[in-house]
Amino acid sequence: MSSHNHNTAPTQYVEANGIRFAYRRFGKAGGVPIVFNQHYTGTMDYWDPAVTDGLARDREVILFNNAGVSSSSGETPDNFQAMGANAIAFIRALGLTQVDVLGISIGGFVAQEIALQGGDLVRKIILVGTGHRGQDMTASRSNEFFSATYDPPEHLWLDVHFKPTDSSRKAGLAFLERKWLRTDRDPEVSEQTIAAQGEAVGKWIAPADDVLAYLKSITQPTLVVQGSDDAIIPTVHSLTLQHEMPNAQLIVYPDSGHGSIYQYPDLFVTHATIFLTA
Amino acid sequence: MSSHNHNTAPTQYVEANGIRFAYRRFGKAGGVPIVFNQHYTGTMDYWDPAVTDGLARDREVILFNNAGVSSSSGETPDNFQAMGANAIAFIRALGLTQVDVLGISIGGFVAQEIALQGGDLVRKIILVGTGHRGQDMTASRSNEFFSATYDPPEHLWLDVHFKPTDSSRKAGLAFLERKWLRTDRDPEVSEQTIAAQGEAVGKWIAPADDVLAYLKSITQPTLVVQGSDDAIIPTVHSLTLQHEMPNAQLIVYPDSGHGSIYQYPDLFVTHATIFLTA
Repeated sequence: MSSHNHNTAPTQYVEANGIRFAYRRFGKAGGVPIVFNQHYTGTMDYWDPAVTDGLARDREVILFNNAGVSSSSGETPDNFQAMGANAIAFIRALGLTQVDVLGISIGGFVAQEIALQGGDLVRKIILVGTGHRGQDMTASRSNEFFSATYDPPEHLWLDVHFKPTDSSRKAGLAFLERKWLRTDRDPEVSEQTIAAQGEAVGKWIAPADDVLAYLKSITQPTLVVQGSDDAIIPTVHSLTLQHEMPNAQLIVYPDSGHGSIYQYPDLFVTHATIFLTA
Repeated sequence: MSSHNHNTAPTQYVEANGIRFAYRRFGKAGGVPIVFNQHYTGTMDYWDPAVTDGLARDREVILFNNAGVSSSSGETPDNFQAMGANAIAFIRALGLTQVDVLGISIGGFVAQEIALQGGDLVRKIILVGTGHRGQDMTASRSNEFFSATYDPPEHLWLDVHFKPTDSSRKAGLAFLERKWLRTDRDPEVSEQTIAAQGEAVGKWIAPADDVLAYLKSITQPTLVVQGSDDAIIPTVHSLTLQHEMPNAQLIVYPDSGHGSIYQYPDLFVTHATIFLTA
């Protein structure tokens, strides 16, 4: 049992695939740990301590930077298959033989790739604010938000993760405060990471024949979580994920967007704990 | 505190609107009771004791037959507005000033009408396997199932409430067993009820301008629950309900249909209890 939490867990390093992966690990040891996969341009510091510490009450939480991201060495690949393979190498380098995985946004694409390639390595999956290969991004405002200028710059994440209602933005400001409580922080991601992640998204959303068929192969129990009005990855894609995966449950929260779990951290931790414990 | 449960609670009667309403009431008294609204052609005996007794651990559960249905007197109206008004009269006749309401299928339409007409009477709402005014029923197999012959006749409900997978039908058979444990049973509904409920559905689904606008007026916290593949009311309508209601959460269960709460009674009771208690 570690006495560390989100804000105090030291950054550690492990080598695999020629990459030195930065990670943090905390929570109640002895069960199946949960490995968090981060969104576009995010580092370990972009998670919500209310979510990570909440889940850490009952299990070990492992945050990490994938290859090339922030304090991890190497290059960020330009496709999610390779990011999934790197994540698997990282998990195995920790000596783990079974984990749960959580992914938000493009981290959800990585989590799907981990499940597809990792076989028995993955026990359960939580997919937050995410979608599927070939998803229609016509309604996404991602390009608009990420090319705009915000003052302070952090307020980008209000547009990305929250809904433009008073109640949602208020929850967003509280999230940003929680996010900045940790003092020992990761460096921001490089231009190489930003470009490679963008290129990977382009490949992921490309239309293809029978593009949903791969979802039938992800047979692990899966919890899909989404906000009512995700401006980055349209909410309807979560219903498709739920429908096409053999064993997926969907929860959609009201008055919320891409980062719904940061708007309702306590309710999400309750729902996720029920799902992971069952 | 009543010592009765689903199978032992006596049928009681109360007069309102010139109708003698049959009802059963059991569970932990002292809080806000939850009033169940039944689906097409169903009586109080069509609920799942695993669901009703599960919720009754923490609150009072009230089952009833709406006007004209089974052991209640009067005629069944040919529209859901009137059914909602009758339900409100029934609830007030019990001396209650605040309730939660649960509705499945057309009972979900009645629950919406209770909320629209009842004002402060309704605290929270649970909508199961249901939809909204003007919903597209092209994909519904309702007419096919309800005009077919089943041997035994009870197996109609396997098609209506469950998915044609081994796992779902097995859960369906277990549900039918639970449903028949009660010996003191309601009479089946009359031809008048069947015809009136059918006519009411036709009016409910009729296209109209701005047909979803009414959902903005249902401001109570609402939990929308659905199966991945509802063959009666297409699952996508639950996403619309969630999106158009100001404060609605959606849960979709895997490998399931119209009666998803009968396939996962324990998980549903857990989710519903979190929602009702919060």
